[in-house]
Amino acid sequence: MSDSALLNCRQLVTLAGPPGPRTGPAMRELAIIPDGAMRIRDGCIAAVGPRADIVRSLAGDTEVIDAGWRVVLPGFIDAHTHPVFAGTRAAEYEQRAEGATYAEIAAAGGGIRSTVRRTREAGDLELATAARRYTDWFLRGGTTTIEAKSGYGLSLDDELRILKTIRLLNAERRLRYVPTFLGAHEIPDEYRGEIEDYVDLVIQEMLPAVAEDNLAEYCDVFCEPNVFPLDPARAILQAAQSLGLRLRIHADQFTGDYAALLAAELGAATADHLESTTALGLAALHEAGVQPVLLPASVYNLGSARYPAARDMIARGMAVVLATDFNPGSSPTASIPMVLSLASTQMKMTPAESITAVTVNAAHSLGRGSRIGSLEPGKAADFAIHECDDYRELAYFFGREPANAVYLAGQCVYRRSA
Amino acid sequence: MSDSALLNCRQLVTLAGPPGPRTGPAMRELAIIPDGAMRIRDGCIAAVGPRADIVRSLAGDTEVIDAGWRVVLPGFIDAHTHPVFAGTRAAEYEQRAEGATYAEIAAAGGGIRSTVRRTREAGDLELATAARRYTDWFLRGGTTTIEAKSGYGLSLDDELRILKTIRLLNAERRLRYVPTFLGAHEIPDEYRGEIEDYVDLVIQEMLPAVAEDNLAEYCDVFCEPNVFPLDPARAILQAAQSLGLRLRIHADQFTGDYAALLAAELGAATADHLESTTALGLAALHEAGVQPVLLPASVYNLGSARYPAARDMIARGMAVVLATDFNPGSSPTASIPMVLSLASTQMKMTPAESITAVTVNAAHSLGRGSRIGSLEPGKAADFAIHECDDYRELAYFFGREPANAVYLAGQCVYRRSA
Ligand SMILES: [Zn+2]
Ligand SMILES: [Zn+2]
Repeated sequence: MSDSALLNCRQLVTLAGPPGPRTGPAMRELAIIPDGAMRIRDGCIAAVGPRADIVRSLAGDTEVIDAGWRVVLPGFIDAHTHPVFAGTRAAEYEQRAEGATYAEIAAAGGGIRSTVRRTREAGDLELATAARRYTDWFLRGGTTTIEAKSGYGLSLDDELRILKTIRLLNAERRLRYVPTFLGAHEIPDEYRGEIEDYVDLVIQEMLPAVAEDNLAEYCDVFCEPNVFPLDPARAILQAAQSLGLRLRIHADQFTGDYAALLAAELGAATADHLESTTALGLAALHEAGVQPVLLPASVYNLGSARYPAARDMIARGMAVVLATDFNPGSSPTASIPMVLSLASTQMKMTPAESITAVTVNAAHSLGRGSRIGSLEPGKAADFAIHECDDYRELAYFFGREPANAVYLAGQCVYRRSA
Repeated sequence: MSDSALLNCRQLVTLAGPPGPRTGPAMRELAIIPDGAMRIRDGCIAAVGPRADIVRSLAGDTEVIDAGWRVVLPGFIDAHTHPVFAGTRAAEYEQRAEGATYAEIAAAGGGIRSTVRRTREAGDLELATAARRYTDWFLRGGTTTIEAKSGYGLSLDDELRILKTIRLLNAERRLRYVPTFLGAHEIPDEYRGEIEDYVDLVIQEMLPAVAEDNLAEYCDVFCEPNVFPLDPARAILQAAQSLGLRLRIHADQFTGDYAALLAAELGAATADHLESTTALGLAALHEAGVQPVLLPASVYNLGSARYPAARDMIARGMAVVLATDFNPGSSPTASIPMVLSLASTQMKMTPAESITAVTVNAAHSLGRGSRIGSLEPGKAADFAIHECDDYRELAYFFGREPANAVYLAGQCVYRRSA
């Protein structure tokens, strides 16, 4: 494969730095090279530096990628998404605007269970087609890797079908997918009131099948007192660990210091949400090295004002991650730029801190800290050329799709034309 | 000019109905035609109806616009924007994330005055080029008409230069601009402490020059006790009225029942913001037939939780309008879809009510209720083809640019290609 070179970057935001996740003041250091350039070989970054240094090293037949004097960043890494489902929940959304609560809608058979019913009815092609549409939306915001959870099947066959859809999409190489098994997302209709039987199904049948076929790297559980309480959650997560899966946990969205302590106990890679976590839970997570994954878009979209305590977490030295939580119920957005806006305006994270949270820190949370998340030699050439003059505009201007072009392993996977 | 016909609309959201603004339950009636179609002649709508009816009436040489089984709406009308300025305020945005307040930044010479300094330095070409970039952003969200305020010049020459830029952009016919003179946006540096002298300049020199050259249809004042208090605001607005301009007022963003009462007294077309207005002010506005223009994107972006009382206004029978308030300080978004999301999630307006607020009601607030804002025979063929299956998705999915194609007077002015 021949070389290519990226030139004409007004800012090349490299996020180069020491290995490992970034904490504290280091989250504000983006290692920006003005008029920076990059040499790419075989899908990987071969060299990064000022234009003059890179141009000097180029061979005659190098293909040039012209950034058009725009801003270039590593592809964003969205470490918490639910991207494979059928239908939308726009009708429930309207009901919420009319005053119904998320809990009332769920109690009436809506919420996650309604998406499960639609997803089970959908054919494989319909599922993949819907997910491909969202692939495009991720790309338009500059995202190149997503963590993708199952959890709208909730039967052996349907959970496997979703994970196989994720595998199929990953193989198409437009977006990288890191698969997570979330069989314990909700109790399906046919197991209402029989949680123990459902947990048995997850542990005895689903998890072994997922592990057998290597369909997931992570296992997640929606752990809340009235969904999957601590004991069943622990049983599922320990079973997953014994099969070699690592853990991410939906923790403390509604109940403080509940699942966060479980995440610390089990040494999960991440505890996600944390809207209700107090100092006790944060201390336990920090002590155990569990990364917090904050999902402000779901807080916003549910009309809540209870954002997670991002500034406290950063002050404690925790390696904060931000993600969209893309899903049809609580967070119908695939836009990391929207999350950057929410992080600055609602949680007082600076644009630089937020960008660290969706690149280097997110990569680390997915066990890929040495392969993606920054523009450094040896890493994959995953990057986005953004329509702006300064990286801070990615948070500042909101409600837009800033990517002009997106590259995955050096190949163009999206280009805005109009 | 030959005819064209719009076909293959999954939903043709016409907003057809009786003339005049919509209030109360009528705000939820969008007059949607499934598989609707439209015949267009000379830039205007000639017929609207079910596909079969329209197809029957077509001549052989009619050009077909294929909506691709998407959702079609009237172009959105953004009735409050500040789109002509130089530079951004991304650095101040970062300072706010670090804890500085908008008031502190303004006191240190930042805020509006910093954009005024940058705008005065900019050449005509730079100003027009920046504004053209934002024209594209409006179109990508499906907007076809914006109210455009001056107010970053604050000298005779610079205010006229901004209004002439708006006239130039309007003549380019990609987006319709309705010009508003906002010389009383802030006290410029050279008049600090000498508000009376500045008000004299506005009344004696700026307003006559604006009126003489027909550069604005409306006059606006930023009316707050510490910016333009009631007496100078009233003097400017009455002078404008005597020159034939109609009124819009920045009212009650921070101080309740202050400028709202002035807007009622003067019979303004709109009172904009109203975050602090109480029942007293709302009753006065309603009585006087002043339309409220709500700007939730600036509330969001300033990190405030004080959204205007949209439900109360609708319950009172007020013809609510929603707008972006696009500007480089408090609201850097040109996205009406983002405003629809904010209206549903933060102010409990249904998607249908919000869409009425940015079409029919916004058109009425700009004195164009008979020409734009709905898809009905005789109106301009201003419409957008949106990438969704149901109109409610325009509010539901957030942080994206939903328009697939946008037409102004029957001509395609934007098409997404990638
Ligand atoms: Zn989630
Ligand atoms: Zn304004």
